Amino acid sequence: MSLLLATDFAPDALERWAAQVRESLPDLQVHTRRDPAHDAGIEFAFVANPAPGVLRDLPRLRFVQSMWAGVDKLLRDPTLPDEVPLARMVDPAMNRAMAETALWAVLNLHRRFFDYLDQQRAKQWQPLPQRRANEVNVAVLGLGEMGRTTALRLAANGYRVSGWSRSGTPIARVDVHARDAGLPQVLAQAEIVINLLPLTARTHSLFNAKTFAQMRRGAHFVNLARGHHVVEKDLLAALDSGQLGHAVLDVFHTEPLPADHVFWSHPKVTVLPHAAAQTDLRSATAIAVANINAVRAGYTPAHLVDRAQGY
Amino acid sequence: MSLLLATDFAPDALERWAAQVRESLPDLQVHTRRDPAHDAGIEFAFVANPAPGVLRDLPRLRFVQSMWAGVDKLLRDPTLPDEVPLARMVDPAMNRAMAETALWAVLNLHRRFFDYLDQQRAKQWQPLPQRRANEVNVAVLGLGEMGRTTALRLAANGYRVSGWSRSGTPIARVDVHARDAGLPQVLAQAEIVINLLPLTARTHSLFNAKTFAQMRRGAHFVNLARGHHVVEKDLLAALDSGQLGHAVLDVFHTEPLPADHVFWSHPKVTVLPHAAAQTDLRSATAIAVANINAVRAGYTPAHLVDRAQGY
Repeated sequence: MSLLLATDFAPDALERWAAQVRESLPDLQVHTRRDPAHDAGIEFAFVANPAPGVLRDLPRLRFVQSMWAGVDKLLRDPTLPDEVPLARMVDPAMNRAMAETALWAVLNLHRRFFDYLDQQRAKQWQPLPQRRANEVNVAVLGLGEMGRTTALRLAANGYRVSGWSRSGTPIARVDVHARDAGLPQVLAQAEIVINLLPLTARTHSLFNAKTFAQMRRGAHFVNLARGHHVVEKDLLAALDSGQLGHAVLDVFHTEPLPADHVFWSHPKVTVLPHAAAQTDLRSATAIAVANINAVRAGYTPAHLVDRAQGY
Repeated sequence: MSLLLATDFAPDALERWAAQVRESLPDLQVHTRRDPAHDAGIEFAFVANPAPGVLRDLPRLRFVQSMWAGVDKLLRDPTLPDEVPLARMVDPAMNRAMAETALWAVLNLHRRFFDYLDQQRAKQWQPLPQRRANEVNVAVLGLGEMGRTTALRLAANGYRVSGWSRSGTPIARVDVHARDAGLPQVLAQAEIVINLLPLTARTHSLFNAKTFAQMRRGAHFVNLARGHHVVEKDLLAALDSGQLGHAVLDVFHTEPLPADHVFWSHPKVTVLPHAAAQTDLRSATAIAVANINAVRAGYTPAHLVDRAQGY
């Protein structure tokens, strides 16, 4: 019985992961690449950006665990076996990392620290007007595990938080709106809009000229989800016209962001290198192992992907 | 019966404050500068950086309210009447603003966002190792109203928080050390040291070559209190030798920070223009008015300064 670790990691990172998995599942053989001699024994796969096709033709494969919360890229691989259960990574440590990045972006925008950093470069001493957190409305779009953790963290730090999700499930201290009709309402009242939606056919290119126009003039946009949620040229137009004030972007159409991309040096754009919430080796392995052991014991693993919904 | 508003504010800011005070204390005359014709009637003073000497020879002055939490500069004015009670500003809105700035600095240092901003300027895409908040020990030096609010906010956001104060009064979830003997212990265990002490004879120049050497190698220093807590040349030496990793400075020996000061362009220094916690017009006026009304009714006002302690 064996497990395939299928990633695009550099060799040293892959070796660290493999060692952690071997230590946690000592009775499984752990392979770090496909080899015809092992194919018949592989029952489990633990994957991070696997090469397309790497999961095809594994006759005994019965469970795939993603290392990442987003499975949009995995689902676009037509060779992914339809009948094998696939689980997303839902890790409280990653949720907290995401909430920290969102809070950092909100503090910068609310308290104008990006402006102060610009002033430092210009050697300019100029205190700016200071507002209270409870005067700042922040919208969190997408209220899955990461969105919910983020919304609660922002509320705990004094912000007025609204949210938007497909279901509209209530969250304490968060003004939750639902379905298509709820989106313009949330966009219209927010000063800072944070995207934490899954990337699906419904949410692809959701942030475009029309939705940017539904935001308050000068609103700030924080994208911590996927690059393809955004029509990049519409975002640039909204920043350049003043419709949007600032954008904090962790994700892009092409990653790494190409050296000649205008975002790098745009004065109203902050670029992060897809680092808002990295997978935590220790906790993610523990969660994957628990799910794999559940499958081995005949239970349903946690956080299975609904392929019709796309997440 | 009248009140003197003694500040170094620009005329428009002074006029906003005066309007707010007049509205709140309609039965008092409010003067915005000394005038011999009014001196005999002045019973109250509400002050922000008053010119030295402006409070002398006011025969009926019976209470001075500072707009600011720090009264070190006021106490250095030898013409300040000894016998008149003096209160510091203790305003929950300011405490929260301070906690926000401290949290922003800690998030930047913990999650390496300052490094990511540097990378953006170099058009460099490089995710950096991500650690958990509960692995990061933050020390808050000074546990008055602002220090206590800050320590609690950091603990609520998952950090391991220690603190240091003269009294050592316990705070839930914070590892509090006391007196001179406690300082090296707190400095030795912290990865980020935040100064929120009052400036007194005991704390002047407290951050010097000796105390920087007591910190962990590569520790970060955040000064949100007073410039004269720090020996600037020792701070620069500690940054340049690598003993300190980064400094976030809101306060300086000379403010505004002179254009030729090395801090402006030092790669390991973040400069803020004394904006960590600005006085909030509405709440500060309400607190001053409550204190003034207490004195008029014969009660002891809140947050009187102990001149022997210096705060």
